[in-house]
Amino acid sequence: MPERLVVIGGDAAGMTAASQARRLRGAQDLQIVAVERGSFTSYSACGIPYWIGGVVTGPDALVARTPEVFERDYAITVRLGTEATVIDLDRREVLVRATADGAEDRLGFDSLVIATGASPVRLRVPGAEVTGIYGVQTLDDGVAVRAAVAAGARRAVVIGGGYIGVEMAEAMVQQCLKVTLVEQAPEPMATLDPDMGRLVREAMTGMGIQVRSGERVVGFDTADGRVTGVRTDQGTVPADLVVLGIGVRPNTALAAAAGLPLGVAGALRVDVRGQVLGTPGVWAAGDCVESFDLVSRRPVHVPLGTHANKQGRVVGVNVGGGYATFPGVVRTAASKVCDIEIARTGLLERDARDAGLRYVTATVASTTRAGYFPGAKPITTKLIAEKRTGRLLGAQIVGQEGAAKRIDALAVALWNSMTVEEMTGLDLSYAPPFAPVWDPILIAARKTAEAVEADMVTHPGRH
Amino acid sequence: MPERLVVIGGDAAGMTAASQARRLRGAQDLQIVAVERGSFTSYSACGIPYWIGGVVTGPDALVARTPEVFERDYAITVRLGTEATVIDLDRREVLVRATADGAEDRLGFDSLVIATGASPVRLRVPGAEVTGIYGVQTLDDGVAVRAAVAAGARRAVVIGGGYIGVEMAEAMVQQCLKVTLVEQAPEPMATLDPDMGRLVREAMTGMGIQVRSGERVVGFDTADGRVTGVRTDQGTVPADLVVLGIGVRPNTALAAAAGLPLGVAGALRVDVRGQVLGTPGVWAAGDCVESFDLVSRRPVHVPLGTHANKQGRVVGVNVGGGYATFPGVVRTAASKVCDIEIARTGLLERDARDAGLRYVTATVASTTRAGYFPGAKPITTKLIAEKRTGRLLGAQIVGQEGAAKRIDALAVALWNSMTVEEMTGLDLSYAPPFAPVWDPILIAARKTAEAVEADMVTHPGRH
Repeated sequence: MPERLVVIGGDAAGMTAASQARRLRGAQDLQIVAVERGSFTSYSACGIPYWIGGVVTGPDALVARTPEVFERDYAITVRLGTEATVIDLDRREVLVRATADGAEDRLGFDSLVIATGASPVRLRVPGAEVTGIYGVQTLDDGVAVRAAVAAGARRAVVIGGGYIGVEMAEAMVQQCLKVTLVEQAPEPMATLDPDMGRLVREAMTGMGIQVRSGERVVGFDTADGRVTGVRTDQGTVPADLVVLGIGVRPNTALAAAAGLPLGVAGALRVDVRGQVLGTPGVWAAGDCVESFDLVSRRPVHVPLGTHANKQGRVVGVNVGGGYATFPGVVRTAASKVCDIEIARTGLLERDARDAGLRYVTATVASTTRAGYFPGAKPITTKLIAEKRTGRLLGAQIVGQEGAAKRIDALAVALWNSMTVEEMTGLDLSYAPPFAPVWDPILIAARKTAEAVEADMVTHPGRH
Repeated sequence: MPERLVVIGGDAAGMTAASQARRLRGAQDLQIVAVERGSFTSYSACGIPYWIGGVVTGPDALVARTPEVFERDYAITVRLGTEATVIDLDRREVLVRATADGAEDRLGFDSLVIATGASPVRLRVPGAEVTGIYGVQTLDDGVAVRAAVAAGARRAVVIGGGYIGVEMAEAMVQQCLKVTLVEQAPEPMATLDPDMGRLVREAMTGMGIQVRSGERVVGFDTADGRVTGVRTDQGTVPADLVVLGIGVRPNTALAAAAGLPLGVAGALRVDVRGQVLGTPGVWAAGDCVESFDLVSRRPVHVPLGTHANKQGRVVGVNVGGGYATFPGVVRTAASKVCDIEIARTGLLERDARDAGLRYVTATVASTTRAGYFPGAKPITTKLIAEKRTGRLLGAQIVGQEGAAKRIDALAVALWNSMTVEEMTGLDLSYAPPFAPVWDPILIAARKTAEAVEADMVTHPGRH
């Protein structure tokens, strides 16, 4: 009689865990059942804005593996349209319900993987529950937004200027809608410091997006149960369609009801192998878990697909009887809006302050290729380093084509706790089509090292 | 009475040293004189193939700072067309001669910076000294090649398939010449392993370049003192123009005559601050010095502009009374031929063998963007890791647009002696326009870690 693994959530984390466990344990040894309340498995949520914008096709192209493929190639059973309603840890079973007909079932498990993901934060303001207001998290959300556009929406308001917000703003422009972005912070792209976010606002404005930053949404105008406008503390913006981009919250009500431990932002607490703290045989991965921030050395909630995949793999190896760990994150992320590429790693200034760290910064404007080379594009690089030690704390890049992916070298430097002084010696690649002879990262490291030194001279002693 | 700094060589290393020293010491304190035997200062030698190919303008656009700028903004005197003929360490003076009229002069120095660069290796075969055979190292070389093309050359033969070789082959195609590349090794791009070099050959062949690899040049056919063909051990290739790309040799005859210590490949031996070993007040930087390879832990000669600039800066800081070091290199380099980008860092397989290291490798074919995203291009990543320890030893990338600069993240990993197992956890940036959700580097790290493990299983014990 084989053991049974039940996976709750059929997207990146859950299905990666399932298929990795299968690689290590055959079907005679381990039965695998995954339940997914939506209509798709293993899709690229990050691709949804590009699908909505018409840059890529969808939804099928965004699905890495269908339930049929999981069944055929992995002997993994997937039940779509099936929601887990209770985790019963004493009986080692999960109660599930079919969303179509409400039929219930019980799935006993030896191992359980919780990969319930996260859901877009909804605003608690008048009118927030009417039709026409969409989060963008699942392929089903994508289907809904595309239908609204096809039905003739002409004016879109995007609330929140994070990654999803700016990407959706661009997608709506590509669909020829009139687009307004409302952001509470002084600048959009609050995943960057405001001085870098300003560069993003300039690019968005140049593309015809109206950016209303420093405005707070206080309610929605509605008619016949549909949204017709967004009311802010400074006025009203007409809207046929509203996209929410104000973050996500882990889907952990189910786990919490089972008494499982929640940490930062309500995310599940797991050990380095992905096992829910103090709960043998119960694992969790993806947007519903907290991660360890290697820079601030604090738990954080960073719901990104890249972590979901890695965590899913780690859990799958461990469920399969192997040994793998997820050491943590340095909060690397990248995006693109219009012709502007955006990337960050490590701490922003406010993150550093929150962690009690004192720091210096330096920002360098340079080009992606040798200045004399055709196609050289602007790139602005900002580094944050700890006072005294000069340890790199974070980096941000805003630039045009070829800019964003350079963040990876900085992410690796951060991972290794390098100081900006040591970074000035880094042997980075140089050729005129790829960089100026002084790579922007090297110049930024030098300027930041000079700032560390200047700070010591200005504030001698142990301030 | 100010001290005097004499700089021999007016290109990247020498002039960076000079201007850095000036930043720290004013003209009342330090007089600076630089002598340069050619006609230009501070130019991008790496830009020459693109200038010859017509991709960039030149030569002026390739000059970062002219002698006039050095005089006006830095109070640095540059004497062009002036060759140093003797370094007299006892008298602390340099004998110089004007190439135009042979006039000689003596320049006393308190500090001396030797930045004499390197020169293309010439073949020692019959006919090697005739007109029409060019190295490509200086802007003056670029002027000569362009003149030969303008004079009607139609058939070019490039000897040697290293960076300069493949770049010059492409440049000649762009100038509508019929181009043949002759390379002694089994594949061109011998700065990569042959399995990666094969990808470069395929791209060059696709561009119409005839690649004759595994052929050795034995002589030149000549007529009226001009080259007319290249003779190899397997035939003759007609040629109006021959470009040498078989490497460079440090210009250290002058230093050797002064009794200064030479190391690997005849390059000057310097300490971490750039001072010639055992010779106070005498410094050296750039293509004429050896560097320390942080991976093999051996001295190497790596003549690249990026090192020349860094070493020049380090020497300038030290001459200026500060403290700076050049810790070494990990042999990162990048280039582009046709639509193929090429990059490496660390050791090739043969370098690892030469250093007595045992290793495993893994090669991964992937794409530069999410597979469903427009513009996703092929990228092949190869990693080399030490047996048992799994320490990364080297990496090579061959791919299309957006591939090469990714080597930097691997260079930083190498710099920090990361193992491939630890690299599987790296927090690299992901967004569909920039990478698949499993970045090629992460997949390659995982495959290599698996190879390390498989090797241990296959060869248990301490083999």
